[in-house]
Amino acid sequence: MRIVTYGGAVSLDGFLAAADGAIDWIHPSKNSYEGMAEQWKTIDTMLVGRRTYEFAVEMTRGKSSPWNPAMKNYVFSRTLKEIADPHLQLIAGDAVPFVRDLKQRTGSGIWLMGGGALATSLLAAGLVDRIRLNVHPILLGSGVPTFRDAGMLVELKRTECRPMDGGCILAQYDVVRPMSA
Amino acid sequence: MRIVTYGGAVSLDGFLAAADGAIDWIHPSKNSYEGMAEQWKTIDTMLVGRRTYEFAVEMTRGKSSPWNPAMKNYVFSRTLKEIADPHLQLIAGDAVPFVRDLKQRTGSGIWLMGGGALATSLLAAGLVDRIRLNVHPILLGSGVPTFRDAGMLVELKRTECRPMDGGCILAQYDVVRPMSA
Repeated sequence: MRIVTYGGAVSLDGFLAAADGAIDWIHPSKNSYEGMAEQWKTIDTMLVGRRTYEFAVEMTRGKSSPWNPAMKNYVFSRTLKEIADPHLQLIAGDAVPFVRDLKQRTGSGIWLMGGGALATSLLAAGLVDRIRLNVHPILLGSGVPTFRDAGMLVELKRTECRPMDGGCILAQYDVVRPMSA
Repeated sequence: MRIVTYGGAVSLDGFLAAADGAIDWIHPSKNSYEGMAEQWKTIDTMLVGRRTYEFAVEMTRGKSSPWNPAMKNYVFSRTLKEIADPHLQLIAGDAVPFVRDLKQRTGSGIWLMGGGALATSLLAAGLVDRIRLNVHPILLGSGVPTFRDAGMLVELKRTECRPMDGGCILAQYDVVRPMSA
């Protein structure tokens, strides 16, 4: 079964981006790039929610596509009608059965990007296997939360705890099991 | 100047307690006790908000006082009229000038317990010097947040990153400076 990893750079108070979407607090260190490069080798599929997609579009307007053409990139949205970028595939239906099916297929690891409804629903459905956070030494106060209420406790097993450049902490966990519904 | 440390056991999604106040997910490991014992030696004063106080009273009903009589224990509340426990002193006024004054006085470290309005206002006022979290491998989904919006960015400097028993991570930071008001 393919592994779904949810993660990214987060503030100590648990935000993936500031309230205005800003990610300029993310520390572009050598060893975080190495950490990402290490990850990319194990991944061939990206799952992205609508907001993360729109934010990436906004950030890269007039530049080349931010989506790696070597990956299968899926955007989940019930409101988007179409996506012009040929490197992305729009999934308009329910993400849970789609991802459940995707995990059964042949392939490498799956990376779930951005927070919000998509991550919460996949976590609640027991489809997230791993959480990998690069915790940054900052309190943003508000923003896009990494975790929303999935309506249950989720037990984790720490698999990594590594100090990173710029005062970051790389924390990785396996999802053990949903403890209660 | 005396150091104010804010911290405690937290879930990976940033809660100090579950929505019903439950802290039964906290891992009572040998090395977390050692970590606390290490801390206690440097502290002679505890700052507690009303909710943390009331929760401690509830948890220890019929048992001995949870407050260490060797410490100066202050409870901040605008609504409590009096506190029967002789080990605690009620502070009805504004916490910010009180703590600012306290830091100028002779004494050891000051520990700020529990989350909520008290921690947020002291953080916003630049009176918290250190953050020390024992991050537990669990997602609670909801509960008492460790950090609320202090209305500004708070830059931190990592001073410790230590794997602990039970899959916990001890993360300690110095507060660098408020970056913007």
